[in-house]
Amino acid sequence: MSPSSLQMSRRIRRTPYTRRVEQCGVRGYSVVNHMILPKAFGPDVEDDYWHLRENVQVWDVSTQRQVALQGPNAADLVQWMTPRDLTDMQVGQCRYAPLVDEHGCLINDPVLLKLSPQHFWLSIADSDVLLWAKGLARGANLDVCVTEPDVSPLAVQGPKAEEVVAGVFGDAVRALKFFQFGWFPFAGTQQLVARSGYSRQGGFEIYLHGAEYGEPLWDAIWDAGVAHNIRAGCPNLIERIEGGLLSYGNEFTRDDNPIECGLSAFCDLDADIETLGGPALRAIVDRGVERNMRGIQVAAPRQHSAVTQPWPVYSDDEQIGIITSGIWSPRLKTHVGLSILPRAYWEPGQSVVVMTPDGSQHDGIVSALPFP
Amino acid sequence: MSPSSLQMSRRIRRTPYTRRVEQCGVRGYSVVNHMILPKAFGPDVEDDYWHLRENVQVWDVSTQRQVALQGPNAADLVQWMTPRDLTDMQVGQCRYAPLVDEHGCLINDPVLLKLSPQHFWLSIADSDVLLWAKGLARGANLDVCVTEPDVSPLAVQGPKAEEVVAGVFGDAVRALKFFQFGWFPFAGTQQLVARSGYSRQGGFEIYLHGAEYGEPLWDAIWDAGVAHNIRAGCPNLIERIEGGLLSYGNEFTRDDNPIECGLSAFCDLDADIETLGGPALRAIVDRGVERNMRGIQVAAPRQHSAVTQPWPVYSDDEQIGIITSGIWSPRLKTHVGLSILPRAYWEPGQSVVVMTPDGSQHDGIVSALPFP
Repeated sequence: MSPSSLQMSRRIRRTPYTRRVEQCGVRGYSVVNHMILPKAFGPDVEDDYWHLRENVQVWDVSTQRQVALQGPNAADLVQWMTPRDLTDMQVGQCRYAPLVDEHGCLINDPVLLKLSPQHFWLSIADSDVLLWAKGLARGANLDVCVTEPDVSPLAVQGPKAEEVVAGVFGDAVRALKFFQFGWFPFAGTQQLVARSGYSRQGGFEIYLHGAEYGEPLWDAIWDAGVAHNIRAGCPNLIERIEGGLLSYGNEFTRDDNPIECGLSAFCDLDADIETLGGPALRAIVDRGVERNMRGIQVAAPRQHSAVTQPWPVYSDDEQIGIITSGIWSPRLKTHVGLSILPRAYWEPGQSVVVMTPDGSQHDGIVSALPFP
Repeated sequence: MSPSSLQMSRRIRRTPYTRRVEQCGVRGYSVVNHMILPKAFGPDVEDDYWHLRENVQVWDVSTQRQVALQGPNAADLVQWMTPRDLTDMQVGQCRYAPLVDEHGCLINDPVLLKLSPQHFWLSIADSDVLLWAKGLARGANLDVCVTEPDVSPLAVQGPKAEEVVAGVFGDAVRALKFFQFGWFPFAGTQQLVARSGYSRQGGFEIYLHGAEYGEPLWDAIWDAGVAHNIRAGCPNLIERIEGGLLSYGNEFTRDDNPIECGLSAFCDLDADIETLGGPALRAIVDRGVERNMRGIQVAAPRQHSAVTQPWPVYSDDEQIGIITSGIWSPRLKTHVGLSILPRAYWEPGQSVVVMTPDGSQHDGIVSALPFP
């Protein structure tokens, strides 16, 4: 299958950084939340991978749109939406918070930010959480305002990220702990900076408020990064799969529940909270967890592209799963992929068989996540 | 700006027809409702335009996902979601039904199908109406089940469409009136066929239930169409702009209301119905309608591509609108575009000034819709 072009229109929104991304030679996009997400720079994804592990990159992740919940019932609404116990959450914290419906099925898996006791942001993956939150609020007559503010996150990722971000926002950002945020000065404004990001290499995300500051922010990061060999990049498929970072719509969908997707740690089913999916999730646990998220190493000859359509996983001719995201790992010298697998096959070391797009079958070995 | 490739993944869903579309040489896609929409075939959009006006085309419009509302409160919920009066809607009818929130702002503009008094489908444009409907239903404790069934519409459009569809489903389809649907046999199943579609050339949409029938249906349409010079196509930008067919996310967004987007005819504000956006829309009418949707003819030298970023519209150096979709019309020998315009400038014949991406300014003339 040859690559097809993405036909642009107003409906596929550009970001405050798109002109800079184009100037840096972006080669391909995905579409997330009705907005373009840069997905390819430089010669190839492996070159980007090694660069990310050793240097610093700036990523346009504006597609992580913010759904703002504000008002007297904002805390009630957000707790209703997620099975994660938010009782002790402090202002200035980020929390990964799966959202589920009344069946315990996944609506999204955002990072939640608590800006004040009555003001939260959900930094979302690819589904219209705004409509879900607004629908619940209007249906239940909650006193909460649900909006999408003019906020476009820019990620700075990699081992040199702290040097770069401190160069722009000052040394105070160094004190931020993982999944903590603060407000820092930029161009006469105060901007939210968090120690977070969609990689395992460490870094920061600047939740830029005000599209008009997009190019000045990009340029300031760039200027501070030149000495650290900065590049324009994007969430790196090799790095995220090795790191066991999941993607809503790829690894799990509205057909899946967090208990059986490796997200049990973020479901506080014994907490005394009022949460929409609680009863359904408890029933899944009581019934017995039947499947879970795992890695698979696939000993296939190196494929020319990442997994674009799921690769089926078999045991004794029975299909037991699908590799939903997968790619060649230049570090592990094998393909690495992610699949939900049934209990009987989920032990690390389990042998499976994986079919690649040409129809050939290859040995696979189940792995814990992250990959070693 | 050179075209960028669309990076494929499971999250960007393929359709039951994608393999056939690829075999027909698709060159480009858009993404709608987390699924690929073919957007370019053949030598160019003008060639497709002339072909569509004289022959018949088959379009993969699976991205028109169905949101099914089923249950005792289904009719209440759908009426709550749209200001269009559904009181007299019959089973077997389609209705264009803008959906609005409590501010009267547009959530989507689906075609509504009434399958039974307790069963509706919303055939949606690009936003997660499923989450909106589910949120309202759960919040208000309505007895209605909200799902996305395995339904993938295939459109057959153009003056020869009736011959082709009758060739597959039998002569009974000829009796369908515009925006009426019925059930017709195919491969041992009953399938929903409507006289409808996103063009002004006439035609049908088959709401195929069951992805496994996708390729057999495509092939049956193709076989019946060969004698009528059938081609694979897609919603044609020239034809839809000339025809005044609007696109959610392009011509209007969640910032706009239907009264000021040319959709007043679909808002029954004096009806005795319980509808969420009613009070807000009545307030807009009482305040006085300040803007509306119009066409603009732009006398610019022929541009090499359609409008991908809005073209600003001016009068006396003041910006008064943006052309959100626009393209060269080979029939009218000028550019045609769509813009919301303020009352002072909305009379057909009004002179305006339009800026093209190279920064040059060109004379524009306001037009009624559809274009003549």
